[in-house]
Amino acid sequence: MTCHIESLFGGITAVDGVEAAGVHCGLKKNGDKDLALIYSRKPANAAGVFTANKFKAPPLLVTERHLGETVRAIVVNSGNANSCTGEQGIDDANSMASLAAEKLGLQPAEVLVASTGVIGVYLPLDKIAHGVELAATQLTPTGGTDAARAIMTTDTVIKESAFRFASETEGDKYSFVIGGMAKGSGMICPDMATMLAFIATDVNVDRDLLQEALREAADYSFNLISVDGDTSTNDMVLLLACGGSGAKLRKDSPHWPAFKNALLHTCRDLAHKVVSDGEGVTKVIKLTLKGAVDYTSARRLARAVLNSNLVKTAFFGGDANWGRIASALGSAGVEIVPGCVDIYLGDVQVMAAGKGLVFDEAAARTVLMQAEVPVLINLNLGQQEITAWGNDLSYDYISINTNYRS
Amino acid sequence: MTCHIESLFGGITAVDGVEAAGVHCGLKKNGDKDLALIYSRKPANAAGVFTANKFKAPPLLVTERHLGETVRAIVVNSGNANSCTGEQGIDDANSMASLAAEKLGLQPAEVLVASTGVIGVYLPLDKIAHGVELAATQLTPTGGTDAARAIMTTDTVIKESAFRFASETEGDKYSFVIGGMAKGSGMICPDMATMLAFIATDVNVDRDLLQEALREAADYSFNLISVDGDTSTNDMVLLLACGGSGAKLRKDSPHWPAFKNALLHTCRDLAHKVVSDGEGVTKVIKLTLKGAVDYTSARRLARAVLNSNLVKTAFFGGDANWGRIASALGSAGVEIVPGCVDIYLGDVQVMAAGKGLVFDEAAARTVLMQAEVPVLINLNLGQQEITAWGNDLSYDYISINTNYRS
Repeated sequence: MTCHIESLFGGITAVDGVEAAGVHCGLKKNGDKDLALIYSRKPANAAGVFTANKFKAPPLLVTERHLGETVRAIVVNSGNANSCTGEQGIDDANSMASLAAEKLGLQPAEVLVASTGVIGVYLPLDKIAHGVELAATQLTPTGGTDAARAIMTTDTVIKESAFRFASETEGDKYSFVIGGMAKGSGMICPDMATMLAFIATDVNVDRDLLQEALREAADYSFNLISVDGDTSTNDMVLLLACGGSGAKLRKDSPHWPAFKNALLHTCRDLAHKVVSDGEGVTKVIKLTLKGAVDYTSARRLARAVLNSNLVKTAFFGGDANWGRIASALGSAGVEIVPGCVDIYLGDVQVMAAGKGLVFDEAAARTVLMQAEVPVLINLNLGQQEITAWGNDLSYDYISINTNYRS
Repeated sequence: MTCHIESLFGGITAVDGVEAAGVHCGLKKNGDKDLALIYSRKPANAAGVFTANKFKAPPLLVTERHLGETVRAIVVNSGNANSCTGEQGIDDANSMASLAAEKLGLQPAEVLVASTGVIGVYLPLDKIAHGVELAATQLTPTGGTDAARAIMTTDTVIKESAFRFASETEGDKYSFVIGGMAKGSGMICPDMATMLAFIATDVNVDRDLLQEALREAADYSFNLISVDGDTSTNDMVLLLACGGSGAKLRKDSPHWPAFKNALLHTCRDLAHKVVSDGEGVTKVIKLTLKGAVDYTSARRLARAVLNSNLVKTAFFGGDANWGRIASALGSAGVEIVPGCVDIYLGDVQVMAAGKGLVFDEAAARTVLMQAEVPVLINLNLGQQEITAWGNDLSYDYISINTNYRS
């Protein structure tokens, strides 16, 4: 089997049959776009993964309920998370879906909703109504980037990805597109799901299979990134299969593995864009953890390392203080055998079988000054390997977060 | 029963029969004291609690082995953690005990050892030998403060406590002293044990009972503080019962509860000094968590809040961003009922039954600008209540930790 990947412009609207718009409706004080509308010309099967936070925000509850049917639109606001807002929050999220449905001639159950921004403030529905009306008139087949801009909060760059994948097995060719957008810069430590990401594909897939593929892709992409160890109340990833590419893709199709890989590729690309734009980030840490017993313990160990403020500040300073990596591993609450652990910074080995090595400090320093620092930890216990991404902790992170609400 | 508490000077040497010294032997480049020696004139029963980090440092392994017998001395160095140093690290920790035993005319098994500082560097035994020799000649009944100074690393203040407790039950009077020292400023999120703390008492208690009392006191003091969520490889608390105060205290004695309370009082005082001197701290967060189901879930929730960088930076900025507290609670991996949660900043209620309230921002701001900010979370689920301490995250934390090794 061969698979060819080609990058496309246009983010989510690179997918045939998808239109989008991004407008300003008054939620952000600075006049930036704050409402996005994504529209599928055909009914789409939809899959979603949602935050593990117990304070799950009202828009997530409404969207989960709407996922049972085919979907035609997603409406998203930034600047207000509609979280910790109780019954009124649920009413407001339902109203948001109804407003969009009315403007687009749909049933409310065909509209998914999402919100991001400050927690604990009620949605100003008049502004939402105005935004939805405006966005409905501006939907275009090239509006993906405008929509991606409208879902940003402390993000400093627009995050979108689109690829055409061509899979070929014994002369049988299959070509499809996956495109999407994401937002997220702080409160990023997705669990079960992630910050906001909206992905579409022209592949025609059943809902259950789509859900299975999304959950697996999220586990190895969004769920392996962390900016600050805080899991938001509003994290979600939605995937629409808009069906433009013809025949239904089934699990026993020779192209199903290619689709799963393509989805993982797209999710990883979006996740990497989120972690690279983490609040105050000066460098990305790419942590490969080998020899773990299973995925759960591997992720827990990777998170312990990537969420350690001591590890993060050492990377910020370019200091090869590997003892902090070892200490974070040891306190993750996972059974490891300290005497088996090897640690490398780039190709510089700093720990062998649980003991520190005398290593070339200059070479390590060179590794640590890269924009993306590769770290390899081998537990030498089992067969599980994962790659997770985090970043350093800088003065700017603190500056951004001391007065977020004002 | 009445209990009277009187503060004493002298830290650990406020306890009759305890001598101490602190000297410089060359481990710290700046000439500061870096080796402490604590000596009990009588054989003492000893108890200890140790780090839960899987990379448990060699001095802890040696000290744990020596705890089976009565103890006469503790030797501690700062500037080098003797951690991740393998078999040689264990040999070095044993040598450290032997060197002290030789100078003091004791058996090596009567000496406990501890180390703190950078991870992964072998102990320079020649310097340790010189320091032990020097300290042995300088032991005095007023040397507690010198010893407390010698165990500091990034600490900015000496941390010691000493109290005389007088308990009276139906005319039966009992008086005793507990004194101790602690160090710790970063890599502080003790689990099972803590950073370094050495405590002595003149009470005569059996080892098993002493161990039980120390474990319980540590659970409600050192194990409820967090500076940065990082559990060190070298955390330990040691308690010596030097027996000077006469008759043996038994579990069925009417004064046993008074001793346990007194020990908790002393441990809390030392723990509070550690968290107040956390790296880069500008304010302490005192979190009372009520209505939890049990201690374990209460601690996990308290830690999730106090270790959240988003919560910590909001407190640094004096921003009443209570949504971050709710989000941290929700992502702690503990079963809670969001619709039951109340949150207060000082006496300002910001969340009732899981919903945000409109509150007096100026009043909340006044609370947040205090040196110690009281936060109350009521889960309204069970009967467990704990008080835990954390602190804010400031620019100075990052400044201190970017180049710790150099």
